Amino acid sequence: MTTTPGGGSSLGALPRTALHPSLSAPLLDTMTFLNEVTLRYPQAISFAPGRPYEGDFDVAHVPGFIETYLDHLRERGYSEERVRTALYQYGETAGQIRDVVARMLDIDEDMTVDPASVVVTVGCQEAVLLTLRALFTGPDDVLLVDSPSYVGITGAAALLGIPVVAVPGTPNGPSLEGLDRTVREIEASGRRAKCLYVVPDCSNPTGVSMHRDDRTALLAAAGRHGLLLLEDNPYGVFSSVRRPTLKSLDTDRRVIYLGSFAKTAFPGARVGFVVADQLVEGGEGGGPGLLADELAKVKSMVTVNTSSLSQAAVAGMLLQNGGGLRAANEGAARHYQATMRHLREALARELGAGGPELADVRWNDPDGGFFLTLDVPFPADEAALHVSAEKYGVIWTPMRHFHLDTAGDRQIRLSCSYLTTGQATEGALRLARFIKDQVQG
Amino acid sequence: MTTTPGGGSSLGALPRTALHPSLSAPLLDTMTFLNEVTLRYPQAISFAPGRPYEGDFDVAHVPGFIETYLDHLRERGYSEERVRTALYQYGETAGQIRDVVARMLDIDEDMTVDPASVVVTVGCQEAVLLTLRALFTGPDDVLLVDSPSYVGITGAAALLGIPVVAVPGTPNGPSLEGLDRTVREIEASGRRAKCLYVVPDCSNPTGVSMHRDDRTALLAAAGRHGLLLLEDNPYGVFSSVRRPTLKSLDTDRRVIYLGSFAKTAFPGARVGFVVADQLVEGGEGGGPGLLADELAKVKSMVTVNTSSLSQAAVAGMLLQNGGGLRAANEGAARHYQATMRHLREALARELGAGGPELADVRWNDPDGGFFLTLDVPFPADEAALHVSAEKYGVIWTPMRHFHLDTAGDRQIRLSCSYLTTGQATEGALRLARFIKDQVQG
Repeated sequence: MTTTPGGGSSLGALPRTALHPSLSAPLLDTMTFLNEVTLRYPQAISFAPGRPYEGDFDVAHVPGFIETYLDHLRERGYSEERVRTALYQYGETAGQIRDVVARMLDIDEDMTVDPASVVVTVGCQEAVLLTLRALFTGPDDVLLVDSPSYVGITGAAALLGIPVVAVPGTPNGPSLEGLDRTVREIEASGRRAKCLYVVPDCSNPTGVSMHRDDRTALLAAAGRHGLLLLEDNPYGVFSSVRRPTLKSLDTDRRVIYLGSFAKTAFPGARVGFVVADQLVEGGEGGGPGLLADELAKVKSMVTVNTSSLSQAAVAGMLLQNGGGLRAANEGAARHYQATMRHLREALARELGAGGPELADVRWNDPDGGFFLTLDVPFPADEAALHVSAEKYGVIWTPMRHFHLDTAGDRQIRLSCSYLTTGQATEGALRLARFIKDQVQG
Repeated sequence: MTTTPGGGSSLGALPRTALHPSLSAPLLDTMTFLNEVTLRYPQAISFAPGRPYEGDFDVAHVPGFIETYLDHLRERGYSEERVRTALYQYGETAGQIRDVVARMLDIDEDMTVDPASVVVTVGCQEAVLLTLRALFTGPDDVLLVDSPSYVGITGAAALLGIPVVAVPGTPNGPSLEGLDRTVREIEASGRRAKCLYVVPDCSNPTGVSMHRDDRTALLAAAGRHGLLLLEDNPYGVFSSVRRPTLKSLDTDRRVIYLGSFAKTAFPGARVGFVVADQLVEGGEGGGPGLLADELAKVKSMVTVNTSSLSQAAVAGMLLQNGGGLRAANEGAARHYQATMRHLREALARELGAGGPELADVRWNDPDGGFFLTLDVPFPADEAALHVSAEKYGVIWTPMRHFHLDTAGDRQIRLSCSYLTTGQATEGALRLARFIKDQVQG
């Protein structure tokens, strides 16, 4: 330490204990890891990033998206001055395209949603953060997550100091017996399970989807346990099997629905939303208000409002496509399904007829989406990943990043979304060579 | 309660105790109040919203801003594919225009900043939230705020459960004696003061600016007390007196600098930034890292990255203006100063030569910026505001919204930023009539 002119000691490097504990947890490095590992091995084929395919995007179309939205405002009677205000100025905290979002949910998901229950957010990640902040009051409120689970939910919970407990997963979504047991254990410890986070369609990281009957059963279980469900649905549009969302089956306002335009429009816009039609005592006029209003209050202290440019671009894309994005994404859905098929076929050719030492190499068969789970009979850790990237030219994500405990250490998440079918096949060949050498080596 | 098919009870309205306590604090209603009170009385002249003047903005220029930034990437050798990725895809968590921001700080503020220490955020509000989350570890870490204080800082602290203590303000910024006393009291209670938040130039809500000597003295005091300073500078560009930022005087990495493009470019873009060049033990390679890297980790769980469209638009505006925005905002600065002059002159004409009962009606003389403080000899509360709006057609903000205690209940914040000079004069006349009637009743 040196003395400064002011008489104090100079500021050295801050010890890590001076920072919030979540910053020393490996969890928060995962997102960075996922985004940047591909950059470290530019020659490798990467099954790591959950990025949408961008081949169909043309930057020259962006001004047209914005103009379409502004024209929509003009058609609704906005003067040029109000149009300018809509783009230039601070906007409504809950978002200016809530009506457009509600209409999309009607068209794409058969969901009837009051625009007043929608909050437009800076990507789905902000929707997660706002919802957790509003609903969790202290250390006795426990968040349940389907396991393995998306790092965006467990990471946001860590930032807010919210305790998280994993509900065991099955090949068809969360185990209801596991849920019952977990809730009982939490209650026995004097705490209470408040929400369960679940991705019912083509889950990240596993690719698993819930059957329709399991959705109904989960809603009934939530009612029994007094749980809210946080339904995150970024991949439903890319499933080959169309199933009702939990929210559309929900007759009791049990489900808070989290949506994203990152996969259906474009990630750079950072637009997502949350539908929160739950009633809350003591709203504006004294009677019950909407949970959405409370989320907007939180948002006013997080990002104030979502970029009007981004909202305009996304709304313009929707309007140019008749109000929905499911039809516009049929090509993308086919692309992801073809890539996944090529990956699975190549894995089957290379590993399916192997010796008994390959019997434990297995992979699942998602209905669509971006992700697939691969079981291997050796630790799929970062050391193995670096060998795979350097010597075999193929990158993947260790599944243990998505577990709260040490489970998943012999599983791999493969993402097909960012590759061509040729790359998927070539990547599968490289991966098969790596696996064979690990098993037989 | 009714019974659902699942056997549980149906979800009634959530009691407010089921929500985070910050949502029941009046604090979080303030932002909504400020944004929406003007809408309630459309005929009134509003000195309430801290919104920039939008008369010089043309929506038709927005595509050009974006194109200018994309051309900048092309000039730097980006292929069309990389340009597309920059706009379409998930981007760097810390931002893609950090170099452009660092260059602006050099041009506009004579600050030499390493782009690696910049994190581009969704408005300055997200920068505040990220910084607080990273630096505050638990209930013993206390945030100091200059009082009265911007609700964005106290609101973000409330969301994160961070204890906040006000440092008494003077007409020239925070009282250093008050700071010493406050720090000692906090230490005596077994806690520690970690940061002081301050707006040294044309503060929101008071309009107060710190003299240069007071800035040096504050830096020395921060050194003595082991405090970090959070310098928020949205209005410095609009001051008639140019003074060095705290950060530019900081030789000891004591200052975390918070910046905004909401006033200099446009609020709808939602782009701000934080400069955090503090060293942190245990960075990427094992040696010290930058606090900016830790803020980016937090950001990955809040908004993932800032809208690439918004970043492109703001960077394009900067590039079209030679890299800085100070020169481009000279007209806006003159406009705000003229509006404030008209307001003050009309107040002086109407209230300055009043009887002894008006002797306690006083207002300050800010160097510029958006805000001015007006003292009145009666409670300036919401009841008075509604009378003022309905009967006199003029809206203002009760200063007590910006105090942690009950202080400021006879003060008013007047914002001149959103009005024409004619509206400012007319608003001042209406305000004078309201004040006279209240005083002379």
